[in-house]
Amino acid sequence: MRILGILAVLALSACASAPAADTPAAPADPAAPVRSVQEILDASPASDWRALNPENTIYMELERGRVIIELATEYAPNHAANIRALARANYFDAANILRSQDNYVVQWGRRDEDPKSLGAATEVVRGEVVRPRAGVEFTPLPDPDTYADEVGFSNGFQVARDESGTWMTHCYAVVGSARGDGLDGGNGGQLYVVIGQSPRNLDRNITLVGRVVQGMELLSTQPRGSGALGFYETPGEMAVLRSIRVASDVPAAQRTNLQVLRTDSGTWASVVDARRTRREAFFAANPVNRLGVCNGSAPVRPAP
Amino acid sequence: MRILGILAVLALSACASAPAADTPAAPADPAAPVRSVQEILDASPASDWRALNPENTIYMELERGRVIIELATEYAPNHAANIRALARANYFDAANILRSQDNYVVQWGRRDEDPKSLGAATEVVRGEVVRPRAGVEFTPLPDPDTYADEVGFSNGFQVARDESGTWMTHCYAVVGSARGDGLDGGNGGQLYVVIGQSPRNLDRNITLVGRVVQGMELLSTQPRGSGALGFYETPGEMAVLRSIRVASDVPAAQRTNLQVLRTDSGTWASVVDARRTRREAFFAANPVNRLGVCNGSAPVRPAP
Repeated sequence: MRILGILAVLALSACASAPAADTPAAPADPAAPVRSVQEILDASPASDWRALNPENTIYMELERGRVIIELATEYAPNHAANIRALARANYFDAANILRSQDNYVVQWGRRDEDPKSLGAATEVVRGEVVRPRAGVEFTPLPDPDTYADEVGFSNGFQVARDESGTWMTHCYAVVGSARGDGLDGGNGGQLYVVIGQSPRNLDRNITLVGRVVQGMELLSTQPRGSGALGFYETPGEMAVLRSIRVASDVPAAQRTNLQVLRTDSGTWASVVDARRTRREAFFAANPVNRLGVCNGSAPVRPAP
Repeated sequence: MRILGILAVLALSACASAPAADTPAAPADPAAPVRSVQEILDASPASDWRALNPENTIYMELERGRVIIELATEYAPNHAANIRALARANYFDAANILRSQDNYVVQWGRRDEDPKSLGAATEVVRGEVVRPRAGVEFTPLPDPDTYADEVGFSNGFQVARDESGTWMTHCYAVVGSARGDGLDGGNGGQLYVVIGQSPRNLDRNITLVGRVVQGMELLSTQPRGSGALGFYETPGEMAVLRSIRVASDVPAAQRTNLQVLRTDSGTWASVVDARRTRREAFFAANPVNRLGVCNGSAPVRPAP
């Protein structure tokens, strides 16, 4: 007996390099050639990609490897600045992964028992949960969303908007700044990443600061904590965070040079179309013709 | 500096015991007492829970522990019967976890190089992706969904429906039967579970057979495979599946007796309301008033 499992072309659909929409609700063209997302990306012009800005990129060095986070400076500029200041104060050196809760978040920072100087960073940063619509790219998705009037992509990030403004959405691999009660309770010194179904109820309730663009699997496979909310109960269970550094502070030879597909590009529009309307034989029963914002994330590649 | 992380009351929101709607779009009552989901469950009458039927429950025994799956016999009766027959032929003994793809699925079954008799099971089972609306409980959620006209819950499972019928949705912890091209390509001998953002594009494209009700973390933390689509490249990387057994074939003393909250119950309606409208102080900025079908899963507890 041979069972193919979920075919290649299928399995790409929900993974880290899945995508979303530029052309609102364009009807599927049955004559369109079936191109895989990889084929679309392989044919893309270099100008449809942008390099990560090292000043907006942080490297989180775990014993198991490097996790790379792009900071969303258009959405959380003050948190991004504070995270840079904390990194430059070596604040995260020998910090820990504090929590791993299944289908929810992995969270890291310093243990209360092991504090450290904040350096030039501030203890509290005002919440940055909604920004004005003007002044930021927005490429809409055409399909309805459960939690917002409109969803789409903005400079590589998954976002939503309504008349009041635009905000980032809690999708897989998106990073937020933990807080207590009150929007202004965090400072970027404790961060979490979504490792399961998008907890969109947190949108506009917690400041999101960026997304993991490489190394997500190092976080998502952390053993779940046995305490309430997935917190680890003893320091011995906590993975050690060697450091968090701003990429621009790391010698060029030790950097990881990545590019993100521009979400205002024609390539992105094609990727979204291919993800939205499934023309592969595997989807003969149902070509879908829908795409959720958290099912689309901008592809990332090593700089050629 | 002390940062609370994401508060308790919050963190419950997206985890395995998050819930969904009986009362369509009831406006939030600001005078309603703030009760946590746990408090609602603690006050629930015994009649709002149902025991898992041992004939519809399978135990997947990994070296790390037991994973428990409830079969969705109302949605995939023929697949459920074939999985039972495979289990009774000891088909899965010494099978493997074959694949772990980040933000997508973990998949298990026998390696092609290590086949085994199917016993009384059949090699192919016809796809069971949509069932008639009539004859099955449906408790709707009031909020819009990206992929379907209507979503809700059916005897503890997350489902969608339109005029053509009702189908299960690819939410976190939901289990499907891998196949090649063609709806009829699988037989339950290779199964997968969703470990990331819901790949709802697979709805009505692959037969879903049930959901993991305990032990999900044993699957979601499997190291990701380094091959294409997260397949492991050598047998040595593959976790061993000691067996899959139907619970009714396991001596009573070795069973795990669980109960699922009835999704047609008043307790479920209260849980959904509490999840949908966030009255806790943490959510002062945005009480949400929405709930996605994949953000709600029926609570499970040990039989009292």
